[in-house]
Amino acid sequence: MDLTALRTENPDHWNKAAAIRALTLDAVAGANSGHSGMPIGMADVATVLFEKHMKFDVNAPKWADRDRFILSAGHGSMLIYSLLYLMGDAQVTHDQIKNFRQSGALTAGHPENFLLDAVEVTTGPLGQGISNAVGFAMAEEMLRAQYGRKIVDHNTYVIAGDGCLMEGISQEAIGLAGRHQLGKLIVFWDNNNITIDGTVDLSDRTNQVQRFKASGWHVQEIDGHNPAEIDAAIEAAKKTKKPSMIACKTHIALGHAAQDTSKGHGALTDAEQMAAAKAAYGWTAAPYEVPADIKAQWEAIGSRGAEARAEWEARFAEISSQKQDRFNRAFALEAPKKLSATVKALKKQVSEEKPSVATRKASEMALAAINPIMPETVGGSADLTGSNNTKTGDLGIFDTDNRKGRYVYWGIREHGMAAAMNGMALHGGIRPYGGTFFCFTDYARPAMRLAALSKLPTVFVMTHDSIGVGEDGPTHQPVEHLAICRATPNTYTFRPADAVETAEAWEIALTSKETPSVIALTRQNLPTLRTEHKLSNLTEKGAYVLAEAESKRQVILLATGSEVSVAMDAKDKLEAQGIGTRVVSVPCMELFLAQDEAYRRKVLPAGPVRVGIEAAVRDGGWDRLLMGERGQEKKAGFVGMAGFGASAPAGELFEKFGITADNTVATVKDLLG
Amino acid sequence: MDLTALRTENPDHWNKAAAIRALTLDAVAGANSGHSGMPIGMADVATVLFEKHMKFDVNAPKWADRDRFILSAGHGSMLIYSLLYLMGDAQVTHDQIKNFRQSGALTAGHPENFLLDAVEVTTGPLGQGISNAVGFAMAEEMLRAQYGRKIVDHNTYVIAGDGCLMEGISQEAIGLAGRHQLGKLIVFWDNNNITIDGTVDLSDRTNQVQRFKASGWHVQEIDGHNPAEIDAAIEAAKKTKKPSMIACKTHIALGHAAQDTSKGHGALTDAEQMAAAKAAYGWTAAPYEVPADIKAQWEAIGSRGAEARAEWEARFAEISSQKQDRFNRAFALEAPKKLSATVKALKKQVSEEKPSVATRKASEMALAAINPIMPETVGGSADLTGSNNTKTGDLGIFDTDNRKGRYVYWGIREHGMAAAMNGMALHGGIRPYGGTFFCFTDYARPAMRLAALSKLPTVFVMTHDSIGVGEDGPTHQPVEHLAICRATPNTYTFRPADAVETAEAWEIALTSKETPSVIALTRQNLPTLRTEHKLSNLTEKGAYVLAEAESKRQVILLATGSEVSVAMDAKDKLEAQGIGTRVVSVPCMELFLAQDEAYRRKVLPAGPVRVGIEAAVRDGGWDRLLMGERGQEKKAGFVGMAGFGASAPAGELFEKFGITADNTVATVKDLLG
Repeated sequence: MDLTALRTENPDHWNKAAAIRALTLDAVAGANSGHSGMPIGMADVATVLFEKHMKFDVNAPKWADRDRFILSAGHGSMLIYSLLYLMGDAQVTHDQIKNFRQSGALTAGHPENFLLDAVEVTTGPLGQGISNAVGFAMAEEMLRAQYGRKIVDHNTYVIAGDGCLMEGISQEAIGLAGRHQLGKLIVFWDNNNITIDGTVDLSDRTNQVQRFKASGWHVQEIDGHNPAEIDAAIEAAKKTKKPSMIACKTHIALGHAAQDTSKGHGALTDAEQMAAAKAAYGWTAAPYEVPADIKAQWEAIGSRGAEARAEWEARFAEISSQKQDRFNRAFALEAPKKLSATVKALKKQVSEEKPSVATRKASEMALAAINPIMPETVGGSADLTGSNNTKTGDLGIFDTDNRKGRYVYWGIREHGMAAAMNGMALHGGIRPYGGTFFCFTDYARPAMRLAALSKLPTVFVMTHDSIGVGEDGPTHQPVEHLAICRATPNTYTFRPADAVETAEAWEIALTSKETPSVIALTRQNLPTLRTEHKLSNLTEKGAYVLAEAESKRQVILLATGSEVSVAMDAKDKLEAQGIGTRVVSVPCMELFLAQDEAYRRKVLPAGPVRVGIEAAVRDGGWDRLLMGERGQEKKAGFVGMAGFGASAPAGELFEKFGITADNTVATVKDLLG
Repeated sequence: MDLTALRTENPDHWNKAAAIRALTLDAVAGANSGHSGMPIGMADVATVLFEKHMKFDVNAPKWADRDRFILSAGHGSMLIYSLLYLMGDAQVTHDQIKNFRQSGALTAGHPENFLLDAVEVTTGPLGQGISNAVGFAMAEEMLRAQYGRKIVDHNTYVIAGDGCLMEGISQEAIGLAGRHQLGKLIVFWDNNNITIDGTVDLSDRTNQVQRFKASGWHVQEIDGHNPAEIDAAIEAAKKTKKPSMIACKTHIALGHAAQDTSKGHGALTDAEQMAAAKAAYGWTAAPYEVPADIKAQWEAIGSRGAEARAEWEARFAEISSQKQDRFNRAFALEAPKKLSATVKALKKQVSEEKPSVATRKASEMALAAINPIMPETVGGSADLTGSNNTKTGDLGIFDTDNRKGRYVYWGIREHGMAAAMNGMALHGGIRPYGGTFFCFTDYARPAMRLAALSKLPTVFVMTHDSIGVGEDGPTHQPVEHLAICRATPNTYTFRPADAVETAEAWEIALTSKETPSVIALTRQNLPTLRTEHKLSNLTEKGAYVLAEAESKRQVILLATGSEVSVAMDAKDKLEAQGIGTRVVSVPCMELFLAQDEAYRRKVLPAGPVRVGIEAAVRDGGWDRLLMGERGQEKKAGFVGMAGFGASAPAGELFEKFGITADNTVATVKDLLG
């Protein structure tokens, strides 16, 4: 392709974009891995966006009212790193560009929000960024409704590739954005017609323009290398009240021998071809170098937003100190002071009243107490509101005519819900929680992993947590999902045993700053076991002694959730036979394993036979509790599930699969020999 | 709603449909749970479909050339059960209807393919059925191309609800079906505008007609209660060469007090309201009873296909016996006799040549040997063909002009690929395998669980199986995914250590009849460890002694995949210090745990310190191997990952995270004290 026309028509623009292209080529070649083609192809769009539109101050990357930029096509990470380096970001130094993808570098293979302040989102798994963006845009609408346009008024920009649009989650995001008319969401589709396996039409011939329009989007089609068209399209997108998709016809790896080919998607490291591409760009600087005038232009872009930020700060100083505190507290993820007392009061009430309720109902009780004092919570459900018990009376429904609404009807979109909740958490100012059936953790799983990796305190309310589901049968009965959540690093998996533990779990989840929580809750009623009110949050220890042995201690029963009452029944039966039995409730295995050895040994002293009880597969981390880190315990057993469930009334299923006090007693006696 | 007009206009049709409605009301009320509204709403469509169009013989539910009927909205299971009972299915007796959702009944809460022969697919998790259907329709195209229209020529019919269309996976399915112009796929959309949380527009306002058209579908809009319109629409759909979507405007729970409401979605059990609904239907029979004349009409429909089946059998008898054998063998999931010898020959060659190759490359070597002798295999990749090494030269590319192609470019659609592969396996005659990065198991997860639950031998080729991914970083580095696969019941999780174990894993995967396989493969090269050719498939035992201790046995190192060579290096270092070390390779933990105790004890005798090595979290079932079922082993350690990975060259990451021979030696010596 002859780039002469492009170069000469608008040299100022061209050179700024060429800087991105040259840095991308150099850094990918230096790392000998990475993705050259996408940053090269989208350099023009990114240049116009940052030069003319992004409300952004490179010296204050966490300014709350900045425009957000999300690289959904995260493999093109050199696009972000180039931009940040060129604009003078304090973290993305020249050395960081040279150390792209190397050990310890902030310029990781994919952009990581926990490494760089200016990276809004960890991206890479395709389709996530565009779905996170829906949450960003919802959060912006909600906060704008709460604080006014002078304090919150920013756009969310996304670059998405063909891969993002082929992933199913993108349809969930598109549907949500269209339904809620998220007018400040602007998506650039990098329409380069290339995937790794070949041209897009090898696997897809969807008319994306029609597809977005079908969901109520404003759509434009432009030449993604024409700065004037790009600029005009962004202007138009900012004006419409619909979410916008700008289809940018681009050439992947523009100007390189690999342009418009699958090869162009990956690492372009051939020295001669790189030299030829740079020549085509009119780029004569040494590798990794940027001429001073071009760098200066970019730095001016980087600080272009400083004035707007100062004005914003002045406006912020004018709102009531109460509002300022609330805003700052929510963005800092500080819980309100009243939370602790509120949870304690609820625990006291429950301990006294001893209700027999499903923990999903107990969760609703906790939310009913907490939501009124935590205006930053936003609840929702993937079309199971009445089953997940996630809606409390004060929240209001988020809608086009009620942006203050704090409850979202997510529809049958577990994955989109989870990703959008992550987006809300990443945006800041919001603490999202959302529900579905625990079995459908499966659908939300890619976003749940990213919550953990990205250090987001998203809360996943997962009801119907075992064969207790009953008649709906094995498609709806989780058996391996506790194991899945526990195996995932940086995730709290709570399975509370009663309404007291449920309240405690919520307190931890809503004070967490860097760890997502899964709260697994029953469909069926459970007795209150914590009948003696304790001020301290016992769930915080992960496991604790719920009932001490009366006779000489020979057995420790460990259980979670609905099986803690099974353990208590088994204890009664064992004690009646003179077998002293301690019951340990384990509402959160991860928190228990994080306690010091002294505490762990106090709860699980050496000697007694240990039996775990959980209506799930044993793989979920049980063996280490039962046998000790080094296998020092001699006798251990497990009462749980060995395979999938079945369709029948719940009570019959617990009998059928032997998750009963009688079977626990038999298991203990077999071990005692 | 006044049903008089509907009843009087076409009483024959009406009464047949009313039988479905009445049985649904009775069975759900009897179970006191279930979903009444959907079968009632779609009874007219189902009646016309079965009466006029379905090629089906109730007495031969496994006839290979039958039309397939898939209830993607699986919660409406009473629709299937009613149809089967009415038509005289041998399994769905009157008692089964009365025992709907009860323990041991074949009429489970959701339809289960492993309980009833006439149920094509286990459905319930929304969006799966419509995506399975894409695989059914592809399988039909492939087999028709191979065997001719006289032997294979049938339609795939789907009933999908709003939930199915909101789930993201539906977009992947719609895109695939449109791309491949699967003209024999006909989807009825139960357009009742109701979800559990309320009307559909609470959460979605997508124009589904435009959306399907955007992906190249033929779309019709009809009144779903008008039998003539239904009939005409099916006729038109059968004629078009595009996949068809028939948007059926229906009333959920038609004629019941809960019609057109969310309540109508669930269990309608109020006796008075049931009576009123039956009166509106003109239905006077006792509960669970069907008047003899109506039952007789339905039974005639059930056996309507007997003649066509007899004619098909005659045609089948005319094709060559070789073709018959191949057809029958593939449908019976019998591997060709040559498979065993082919794998042995490959193993011998590898043992002699001792290549240093990535196991993903070794997998390609195995496929290159096997694909030519197993014409029933169909390969593919979710846009990572060159990385997953799933394509071998002889396959050809499946496309609109090459239906004989056995390789599918699935696009960036891991979930849709997995569900469509399940559909191919369910259709029969095909053994599907497909690849992506192991980390993106997350995206495919809901379909992978259904493969396990539905007992399908789908093969998931998961490359880039650890931090060995290197620079792409933690979004692309699985650490918990082995644990996830191992925690899932009825799933073989293979992690072969070299090219020999890889060939063995493929042999097991391709002879499995009821268990899906995950084959986790490295990006990076590994040495050949099985340098002594053994005829028997050692991977079949799950774990085996790869190298015996030379000095007195004090240690057993257990490892999988790329860490087996780490174990071998550690053994060398330990033996040099006089510490006798056995190395046990564990290519498939599930198969090892299924061996008898004698074998397990032979491989893992009591006494020596045990240390596991795997570049993944310990939760993946390790503790039981390290400590024994009952915790009888005293000293155990683990060398692996404690959290997410990082972006850096792979070799540096193994050092950084301590997955090295030196760290293994240190761990052993610490345990030996």
